[in-house]
Amino acid sequence: MAPLPELIPVRDDGSVLSKKFGSGVNNYYSGCPLNRVSFLREDYGFLSSAFTSSEAQFIVLNDFAPLVHDLATIKAVRREDLISVTGPDPFKLSEKELVSAYDSKVASPLVVFLGIWEDEVSQFKIREFRGRPWFSVDLTPRGSYADAAQSVIKKLTSDGSFFMKGARQNTLGSEIAAVYGEARGVTDWNLRNPFCAGCGQRTLSVHGGWKRVCTPTDLNGTDTPQVRDDCPSRVGISNIGFPRTDPTMIAAVVSSDGQRVLLGRNKKWPGGFYSTLAGFLEPGEGVEDCVRREVWEESGVKVGRVVLHSTQPWPYPASLMLGAVACALPDGEAIHLGHDPELEDAKWVTIKELRELLKVTRPSAESVATNGAGSDALFLPPHTAIAHQLLSAVAEGYAGFSGPQASL
Amino acid sequence: MAPLPELIPVRDDGSVLSKKFGSGVNNYYSGCPLNRVSFLREDYGFLSSAFTSSEAQFIVLNDFAPLVHDLATIKAVRREDLISVTGPDPFKLSEKELVSAYDSKVASPLVVFLGIWEDEVSQFKIREFRGRPWFSVDLTPRGSYADAAQSVIKKLTSDGSFFMKGARQNTLGSEIAAVYGEARGVTDWNLRNPFCAGCGQRTLSVHGGWKRVCTPTDLNGTDTPQVRDDCPSRVGISNIGFPRTDPTMIAAVVSSDGQRVLLGRNKKWPGGFYSTLAGFLEPGEGVEDCVRREVWEESGVKVGRVVLHSTQPWPYPASLMLGAVACALPDGEAIHLGHDPELEDAKWVTIKELRELLKVTRPSAESVATNGAGSDALFLPPHTAIAHQLLSAVAEGYAGFSGPQASL
Repeated sequence: MAPLPELIPVRDDGSVLSKKFGSGVNNYYSGCPLNRVSFLREDYGFLSSAFTSSEAQFIVLNDFAPLVHDLATIKAVRREDLISVTGPDPFKLSEKELVSAYDSKVASPLVVFLGIWEDEVSQFKIREFRGRPWFSVDLTPRGSYADAAQSVIKKLTSDGSFFMKGARQNTLGSEIAAVYGEARGVTDWNLRNPFCAGCGQRTLSVHGGWKRVCTPTDLNGTDTPQVRDDCPSRVGISNIGFPRTDPTMIAAVVSSDGQRVLLGRNKKWPGGFYSTLAGFLEPGEGVEDCVRREVWEESGVKVGRVVLHSTQPWPYPASLMLGAVACALPDGEAIHLGHDPELEDAKWVTIKELRELLKVTRPSAESVATNGAGSDALFLPPHTAIAHQLLSAVAEGYAGFSGPQASL
Repeated sequence: MAPLPELIPVRDDGSVLSKKFGSGVNNYYSGCPLNRVSFLREDYGFLSSAFTSSEAQFIVLNDFAPLVHDLATIKAVRREDLISVTGPDPFKLSEKELVSAYDSKVASPLVVFLGIWEDEVSQFKIREFRGRPWFSVDLTPRGSYADAAQSVIKKLTSDGSFFMKGARQNTLGSEIAAVYGEARGVTDWNLRNPFCAGCGQRTLSVHGGWKRVCTPTDLNGTDTPQVRDDCPSRVGISNIGFPRTDPTMIAAVVSSDGQRVLLGRNKKWPGGFYSTLAGFLEPGEGVEDCVRREVWEESGVKVGRVVLHSTQPWPYPASLMLGAVACALPDGEAIHLGHDPELEDAKWVTIKELRELLKVTRPSAESVATNGAGSDALFLPPHTAIAHQLLSAVAEGYAGFSGPQASL
C-alpha cells in the first residue's frame, strides 16, 4: 500500500494552502482547486468548447468508484478514450434544443462539468479564464451504452489502473480528493433523482449536470414530441431541480469545567472507535439548535454555548458537515442513552486523555479486520475527518471552553 | 400596525435566552422552544395520544400563511375546531397499517407533529416529557376536504383573526416565529415533493409529517392493494424520503485593511437596499469554499480567511443561512460584476459608515412603496436578518478583521 499522501487540513503554519486562504482549517474534501465558473454552465457554447478542447481532463467513475493510478492518484483520461460512450460532443445542442429533443426512453451517460483548473500556459481560454477544463463521466454500464462502457473500462484498466472502491478511506491526495468529491456528489444526486418530485415524470440533466428539468414534452421513443402533464416545477423558482446537500451538525462537546470532552460510538462502528456526535439538521433549526437537540437526544447531555469551527463536504452521498465546539450546561452532564437508541455508548474523556488519543494512529484496516469488534483500545477518527479537527481544537483550547486547567 | 415585538437575537447581556444557551447570537427563526422528541415520531401510539390530548395546540396554515391574532401573535387552535378536516385522529393506524392502506387517489390534509412545549403543569405527559404537544395543520382547501376546510377557515376568522400573508416580514414574536418556521418548512417540503424522485410514484407522509415513503402497494381508488413498481428508495438508506434543507452561505466581507465592508444589491430589491452577499452551497464544497466562490462570482472580490459566525433557518422555503465573516485578499478587492449577473451593484463602505447605517431603522413598507426604486438612501436589512447580525459583528470587530483603526 502506498504511503498516505500529505493531507489537508492545513493550519496557519506557512504552507501553501494556508497562504492562499489565510488561517483556519481546510478540511479534507474542501478547498477544491477548480474554478467552477458556475455562471458559464448555462452557456452550451462554452461547455462544448471546453469538452472538445485538447486540454480537457476527465475523471471517470464506475459505480461511483474513481479510476486511479494508485490509492493516492486519480487517473485523468482524455476525450478520445471516452468518445464511444459520450459521443464527440454531448453539449453540441443548446439547452432549448436538448429540451425539445428530450426522449425519456434514451439513456445517456452523465457528463458533469466540474470547473477549470486555472494556469497560465494551457491553450484553452475563454473570456479571462485560462486552464484545463475538468469533467467527470459516469461509465457505469447501463442501457444502450453498456457494451461501449465495458469496452472503455477494459481498455482504461489494461495498464494496471483500477476503479478504487474504497474511496471513502480518503487516501487520495487532498486537492484531487476535493475534485473527486465534487464529481461524486453531483453524479450521485443525478442518479438518485431521475424523476421529478413535483409531478413524477422523468427529468433531463442540463447545465453540465447541475440542474434537472422537467421538460414540457417527451419524444417517448417516437419521432414526435408528446405534451406532458403540467408540473409545478416549471412555474417560478423551485429547488427540486438543483442538487441537494444535507446539512449535518457535528460537535465536540466540552464539560462545563473544561476538563472533559464527550465521545460516543455507534454499535455499527469498529470495536474501540469513538467520535464526536453528529446528526442531520431539520427544517426550522439552525446549527446551534441542532447541536443542542441532537446531543441531548443521543446522549442526554444538555448543551449551552455553541461556537462554529469549520465545515467539510462529505460526498457519501450528500452531507455538509457543519463542525462546532460546544459547552455542556453544568447541570446537564449526565449521560442518558435512553432517548434515541442511536448510540451504543457515550462517555466523558479527560482533555489529557484526549491529547494522548489524538497522537494514536488509527489502526490499519488489517488490524481492524483481525481484531474486529473485540478490540477494546479506544481510537479516534483520522485527521481527514472533521471530527478529528474538532477534537484537536478542543485539545488546543478553542473558544476558551477547555482552559489551562484542563492540561493538569 | 402593532409595535414590533421584542426580537431575537439575544447577546450575552443577561437576558433569558442568553442564560439558557450561553453567549452567542440566536438569530430570528432559531431557538425554537419546542422539544421535538424526534425519536418519538415513529411511535404512532405517542402521536395519537398527543393529537387527542386536551392540551394539544394547533398552528393552522392556509397557503402557508399562519392564522394570527395580530402581526405578532399566532392564534393556536384546538382539535375540536379542526376535526371536520383532520378526522378525530389521523395517527390512529400504525405506520404499517397506513402503508398497507395507502390510496394515492385520496387526499388528506397534512398534519405535522412539531414537538412538546415543556412545562411542569400540563396534564399531557409521556415518558419523562410533560407539556403541550404542538401540531400544524395545512387547511388550504383541497380535494375532498376543500369544503370542510373552507367552513373551518370561515369559523376561525370570524373573531377577527386572519391568515397573515406577509409572515416573512418577521413581525411574529421570536419564540412563536421559530415554531412557525418549523411548521412552514416541513409543510412546504411535503407539498413540494408529493412524488418519489427515485421512481416517480406518489408518496405517503408518515412519522408525523417528517418522512415520505414510497409504498410497495397502492389501493389506487379500489379495495384491493395493487403492487407498484420497484423503487430504489425502498432498499437501504436514502435521503430522498426526508425533508430537504438547502445550505446557503451569507458573508460580511471586510477589506484586508479592516477599514471597509462589502455590500451588494440585487436589482429586484427595494431602492437603496444593500446587504451582505449570499449563495447556495453546491455538492463538494464547504461553507468556506462557497464564500470564496460566490463572493468572487458575484462581486469579483477574492476572499482569504473565512470565520463562521452563526446560523439562521430561513423557511422561504427551505434555506439554512450559514453566516460568516470573511477577509478580502489585499490584491483582490477590485469590484467586478461581469462574472455572474446576479448583482446590480456592489461597493465598499467604511466601517464608520456601517456603524451609522446600522442605527438607521428600516424604512417602513409604506415608505418603500411610496419612494420605491427611486429612493437613494442606503439602508440595511433589519435585525431579524442574519445579514444585520453579521454586519453588527463586523462593526464590533468580530474575528479581528476590523481592527481599532477602523473606527477612525
